Amino acid sequence: MTQKIAILGASGYTGAELVRLIATHPSMQVAALSGDRKAGMRMGEVFPHLRHLDLPELQRIEDIDMSGIDLVFCALPHATSQAVIAELPRDLKVVDLSADFRLRDPEAYAKWYGKPHGALDLQQQAVYGLTEFYRGDIRAARLVAGTGCNAATGQYALRPLIAGGLIDLDDIIIDLKTGVSGAGRSLKENLLHAELSEGAHAYAIGGTHRHLAEFDQEFSAIAGRPVKVQFTPHLLPANRGIIATVYVKGDPQAIHGAFETAYADEPFLEVLPFGQAPSTRHVRGSNFCHVGVSGDRIEGRAIVIAALDNLTKGSSGQAIQNANLMLGVEETAGLMLAPVFP
Amino acid sequence: MTQKIAILGASGYTGAELVRLIATHPSMQVAALSGDRKAGMRMGEVFPHLRHLDLPELQRIEDIDMSGIDLVFCALPHATSQAVIAELPRDLKVVDLSADFRLRDPEAYAKWYGKPHGALDLQQQAVYGLTEFYRGDIRAARLVAGTGCNAATGQYALRPLIAGGLIDLDDIIIDLKTGVSGAGRSLKENLLHAELSEGAHAYAIGGTHRHLAEFDQEFSAIAGRPVKVQFTPHLLPANRGIIATVYVKGDPQAIHGAFETAYADEPFLEVLPFGQAPSTRHVRGSNFCHVGVSGDRIEGRAIVIAALDNLTKGSSGQAIQNANLMLGVEETAGLMLAPVFP
Amino acid sequence: MTQKIAILGASGYTGAELVRLIATHPSMQVAALSGDRKAGMRMGEVFPHLRHLDLPELQRIEDIDMSGIDLVFCALPHATSQAVIAELPRDLKVVDLSADFRLRDPEAYAKWYGKPHGALDLQQQAVYGLTEFYRGDIRAARLVAGTGCNAATGQYALRPLIAGGLIDLDDIIIDLKTGVSGAGRSLKENLLHAELSEGAHAYAIGGTHRHLAEFDQEFSAIAGRPVKVQFTPHLLPANRGIIATVYVKGDPQAIHGAFETAYADEPFLEVLPFGQAPSTRHVRGSNFCHVGVSGDRIEGRAIVIAALDNLTKGSSGQAIQNANLMLGVEETAGLMLAPVFP
Amino acid sequence: MTQKIAILGASGYTGAELVRLIATHPSMQVAALSGDRKAGMRMGEVFPHLRHLDLPELQRIEDIDMSGIDLVFCALPHATSQAVIAELPRDLKVVDLSADFRLRDPEAYAKWYGKPHGALDLQQQAVYGLTEFYRGDIRAARLVAGTGCNAATGQYALRPLIAGGLIDLDDIIIDLKTGVSGAGRSLKENLLHAELSEGAHAYAIGGTHRHLAEFDQEFSAIAGRPVKVQFTPHLLPANRGIIATVYVKGDPQAIHGAFETAYADEPFLEVLPFGQAPSTRHVRGSNFCHVGVSGDRIEGRAIVIAALDNLTKGSSGQAIQNANLMLGVEETAGLMLAPVFP
Repeated sequence: MTQKIAILGASGYTGAELVRLIATHPSMQVAALSGDRKAGMRMGEVFPHLRHLDLPELQRIEDIDMSGIDLVFCALPHATSQAVIAELPRDLKVVDLSADFRLRDPEAYAKWYGKPHGALDLQQQAVYGLTEFYRGDIRAARLVAGTGCNAATGQYALRPLIAGGLIDLDDIIIDLKTGVSGAGRSLKENLLHAELSEGAHAYAIGGTHRHLAEFDQEFSAIAGRPVKVQFTPHLLPANRGIIATVYVKGDPQAIHGAFETAYADEPFLEVLPFGQAPSTRHVRGSNFCHVGVSGDRIEGRAIVIAALDNLTKGSSGQAIQNANLMLGVEETAGLMLAPVFP
Repeated sequence: MTQKIAILGASGYTGAELVRLIATHPSMQVAALSGDRKAGMRMGEVFPHLRHLDLPELQRIEDIDMSGIDLVFCALPHATSQAVIAELPRDLKVVDLSADFRLRDPEAYAKWYGKPHGALDLQQQAVYGLTEFYRGDIRAARLVAGTGCNAATGQYALRPLIAGGLIDLDDIIIDLKTGVSGAGRSLKENLLHAELSEGAHAYAIGGTHRHLAEFDQEFSAIAGRPVKVQFTPHLLPANRGIIATVYVKGDPQAIHGAFETAYADEPFLEVLPFGQAPSTRHVRGSNFCHVGVSGDRIEGRAIVIAALDNLTKGSSGQAIQNANLMLGVEETAGLMLAPVFP
Repeated sequence: MTQKIAILGASGYTGAELVRLIATHPSMQVAALSGDRKAGMRMGEVFPHLRHLDLPELQRIEDIDMSGIDLVFCALPHATSQAVIAELPRDLKVVDLSADFRLRDPEAYAKWYGKPHGALDLQQQAVYGLTEFYRGDIRAARLVAGTGCNAATGQYALRPLIAGGLIDLDDIIIDLKTGVSGAGRSLKENLLHAELSEGAHAYAIGGTHRHLAEFDQEFSAIAGRPVKVQFTPHLLPANRGIIATVYVKGDPQAIHGAFETAYADEPFLEVLPFGQAPSTRHVRGSNFCHVGVSGDRIEGRAIVIAALDNLTKGSSGQAIQNANLMLGVEETAGLMLAPVFP
Repeated sequence: MTQKIAILGASGYTGAELVRLIATHPSMQVAALSGDRKAGMRMGEVFPHLRHLDLPELQRIEDIDMSGIDLVFCALPHATSQAVIAELPRDLKVVDLSADFRLRDPEAYAKWYGKPHGALDLQQQAVYGLTEFYRGDIRAARLVAGTGCNAATGQYALRPLIAGGLIDLDDIIIDLKTGVSGAGRSLKENLLHAELSEGAHAYAIGGTHRHLAEFDQEFSAIAGRPVKVQFTPHLLPANRGIIATVYVKGDPQAIHGAFETAYADEPFLEVLPFGQAPSTRHVRGSNFCHVGVSGDRIEGRAIVIAALDNLTKGSSGQAIQNANLMLGVEETAGLMLAPVFP
C-alpha cells in the first residue's frame, strides 16, 4: 500500500531532504509539494539534485487538494506553520518540522518565540517528536512536533543519565558545534561561503538559543524538578552535522553502561565503545546518531559526545521515522541508508 | 534470491562505497571482505560510518572461502589486482575496479602502466565496464573492468558526438576538475587537508594522465581512426565529484540533440536543458551523471559539461550497475539513491 | 611623507582588502571611509578582523571632506562608480575598482553593461590598470581603471604570446576557476556556504561573461586585428584565488621563453620552471601571480596556467600598485607580503 | 642593523610561517635554513608560496655555520629539539617552538612526553614564552620555549581570572576547536582532506592532551595551589585557527573588566565588547588574539572565548615576538600584519 504524502515548504533544505528520503522509501509517494514563492516551478529547477525524480509541480498551499493525502510534512517557518496547520482538515496526520508545537507550555512558547501561540488547541494535542522516547504517543498521534536539531542531539546525550539519576543536574554544559545547513537556505551575510569557510565561532551565547526551551521542558519533566543546562552552539565550516560535547559530573563507566542499556534495541542510536569519540562525518546523510562516553583525569567527571546529521536524524529523517509510526509501517522504512563518507 | 558478494580491498574508499551501496541493495549481501593490512579488524573500526551494519570481519584474501561467492568486487591497486584475479576460480564472476583490465592492447598497458601485463589471457576476455555502451557484453561477461573515474566522465561527454560524426576529432579539449577522494586513502603530502583546502591546481599536465589510454582506446574505436584528445585534470578542495568541461568544434544544438537521443532511455544519464550547466553537488553520493551543452559566442564551438560522483558513478556505483547485469537482476537495483545535497 | 587615502565603498571585500594592505603600507594612511548603508559604524564592526586598526568611521560619500585627500580608491558597484567619480574634484587622483572605466569603446560598454556610459569624458581619460603593461600611462594618469580579476589572470597568461606572435589567435580557450570572494559580499543563494562548498560548476557559459569585453579590447589591440577567445569561468569552493588554464596552439618552449623574457624584471610575476603548474594556495593573500607553461603530447599545443589572488593581485593589490605609481612612491610599497599558506 | 636568523626545521608549517613573517620584518634576515630530509633543495621548491624570496638553500643542521647567526628558531619535533639545541654554541640566542623546554618540572616532562628530559641544564634556564606574561624574563633570556598553540589560547582566556581570584578554580572547562595545520605536515590518515573536511570530532579526550601539562604548570603557579582544568580539543575542517570556549564560575562583568584591565596596553590582545564572540576567521594569518566574555542565563556563570591563529600567535608569530624582545628591537616589529579575511 502506498501512502500519499504532501510536503509543505518544499523549497527549503528540510523539504528537499524529505523528498530525497522518500525517493527510496518503500511505501511513501510524494503526491503534493508546496513552495509559495516558487509555485509553478518543478522541483528539479529548485533543487537540481532531485531532477531525476517524477515529482508534482510546486503549488501554493491553498491550491493543494488534501482529500487524497495520507500525511502532511510541514516544513515551514515557525508562526507560519501554526497558521497553516490550523487550516488543514482535522483528521489529516501532520508531522510539523517547525518549532511551533514543541513546547507544551504556552507561556514558554510566548517567552522564547516572542509572541503568543495562535493555535493553542493544536498545541495541546501535539506530541513531542523525539521518536525513541515518545513512541507510544507518536503511534497514536494526529500531530507530531519535530524537535529542534540541536535539541535532539543534546537529548540523545543526556536523557538516560537524567532518568537514571546518574549526574549532577545543576552542572550540565552542552558545547555544541553545528554545520550551516541547520540555518536553512535563507539569505544572510553570515551564511555566505566567504564569511563562513575556514573559520568557526560561537553564536547565541549566554543561554539565549531557543532550543534551550526544549531542554528545559524535557529535562525538567524527566527529573521531576527544574533542570537548567548551559548551552553554547558554534557554527562550523561544514554543511551537515551536529556534534554535542556534553560535560557532566558522574561516574563515566556507569554513564556508558546506561547508554548501552537504554539504546540496546534502538535501530538508529549507536553507542561507541568506552573512550571512543564520534564524528559528524560518520553519520552524514543518514538517520544514525553516534554516542560516545569518556572519563576525565578528574575523577567523577564524564564527557558525552553525540553526533548526528542535522538534516536527517535532526530533522527530516526524524520526521519520516515519526511518520512511519503514525502510518503503521516499519519504523525504519526508508531510513536505513548508510552514511556517505568520505 | 540473495547474491553473496566478496569485496577484495575493502579498506579503501571504493571498497567502503561498495559496502555503503550494498547496504540497501535488495538482493546483494556482503559475504566476505578482505583488507590485508587490516585483516582481523571489523569494518566498523576501519570505517566507523559503517558500524551499524552486520558485516564479516576483514580477512586476508587467501583466507576467504570463495566456494559460496556469487561475485567478487576487486578494489585493489593495479598490478596487485591482476595477480589476485588470476588466482580466483575461473568461473567466478569478477568486477575489477582497478586499471588492470581496461586496456585491450597489451602494448598500451605496458606503455601507460610501466610494465608488461601479467595476465594476458584474462585481459583478452575482460569487458570494458562503461555500462551504457557495453551492456550486451557485460551481461555475458565473467570479468568486467571498471573504467577510470575521469575516463567515465569524459566519455559521457563525448561518445555520442564522436559516434555521430558531430565534432572535429582533432580538436577536443577536456578540462577536468576532480575532488580528492579519487586519489584514495593513501598518505601523500598533497592530499593533506592543509595542502589542499582553499586552493586548486592542475596535475598530470601535458597529456600524461593514464586515463588518456582509455580515451584513446575508446574514442579511436568509435571513430574508426586514431583520436587523441587533450586532457588536463585539476584537483579541487572537495571530497567527491568530477566535472569535465569539454571544448569541441561542432554545432551546439545538434550536439545537444545527440545527447537527448542517445541518453533518452538511460536511467542514470540526465541531459540538462540547452544552455544549463551541471554541478558536482547535484550528483553527490549518487549514481547519476548530469550532462549539459552550451554554445559559444564563436560560431561552431560548443561546450559540453559532464558531472558525476567519482566514488559512485565513476567507480563503485558503476561496479554495482555492471554486477547487476552480470547477475541478471534489475540494472538499477540498489542504485536509485538520490544525491545528497546540501 | 604620508599620502592621505579615501576609500569609497569600504564595506565590501575589496574595500576591506584595501584597508588590510594599507595597514602595513609605509606611506599611505586611511583618512576617510565611506559605506552608505553602514554610515556611522566603525570599520571594526563591519569587519572585525580590522578592529585593531585606528580608522575613521564610515561616512556617507557626500559627507567626506575631499580637500586633504591625495588619492581615492573607489570600490563601488559599476554604474554607481561613474556617477560618484563624476562628482569628485577633477584634480583628485582616483583608482576605480569597478568595471566603469575599463573599456575605451563606449559602444562596447553599452553592449556588455546594458546601458550607455554616463561619464564619457572621464572614460576617455581613464587608463587601463594592468600595471605591468601600462606603467607609463598609469604614472601620469589622474584616473586609473582597475581590471576585472578574471581579466587580469587571463591577460597575464596570454599578452606576451599575442604580442610575440607565438600562438594561433583563432583558437584560444581560457578555462578559469575562481574562488567565491570575487562575487563580493552580496546576498545571493548561490553564494551560500551550503550551496557552494563541496562542489564546483561553470557559470556565465557560452561567451557571456563581461570580462570578455576586456579580453577583446586588449588582445585585439595587441594583435592589431580582432581576437576573440573562448572563456568559461567556474566557481570553486574556496574563498580566494583564480586559476586560469589556457589552451593555445604554439611551441611550448618558445612560449615559456617568452614569459621568462617578458616577466624577467617584474616584481610580482613569477614564471615557474617549464612543466610546473601553479596553485592558487601559493599566492593566497599576496600580490603575486604565478605563471606555468607545459607542452602536450600533441605537438604544437601548449597549456599556460596562471594563478593569482582575486582580492589582491586581481583587485585591491593591483589598485595599490597603481596608486603607488600615481603617487610617485616605490611600485612595490606595501605589497611584498608573502602568501599565506597553509 | 640586521639580525641574522637561522631556522632549524624549515620544511614544516611553523618553519614556513617564520619565513613568511620574516619576509617583511624590518630588521631580521634569514641567513640559514635547515631541513634534513630536504637538504639541498630550495625553499621555493618545498614551499612554492615562498618562491619569490631570496633565501639560502636548505642544509643539514651540522652544515650550518652558526658563527654569524644572531638568533636561532628551532622548529623541530620535541626530543629532537633538545638534542639539537644542546649542541648549539651556548651564547647563541634560541627560540624553541617544540615542547621540549616548556615544562620546568623534569618529572612532568617525563610523565607527559614519555621519557626523561635529555638536557636538564638547558631546561632549567629556559623561559616560558607566553610573551605578555614573561616579558622581563624573555628580554634577558638566552633560551625561550614557545608555548603550545592550544596552551596559549587557553591561557589568554584564563590567566587574569585566576590571578584575580575571580573564578572557581575547581570547575574550569576548556572546550577547544582547532584547525588542522596545528598537527603539522605529517602524513597521517586522519589529516587527509577526504577524512577531515565536512566534519568535526573530538580527540585526546579525557584529559590526555599534552598541553594540559602547561595548563597545570602555569595555572597552579598563578593560583599558588594545584589547579586542574578539563580540556577537550576538537579538530575542525579548517587550516588555521583555534577557538577556545571556556566555561567558568564567576561574575561575568567582573571577568570582562579584568580582561579590559589586564590587556589594556597589549598590542596583540583584543578584548571584545561584553557579550560579543570572537571568530577564528578574524585573526587568520595574524598575531592577534581576540577575547570575548559573555554571561549565561544561570547566574554566576561566564563563558570566555579566545581565538587566535595557531601558526601565528600560537606558534611562529609568538616566536618572533619573543625574538624581538631578546634582540632588543620593537616587540611588534614585523607582526602588525592585518588578518586575512575572507
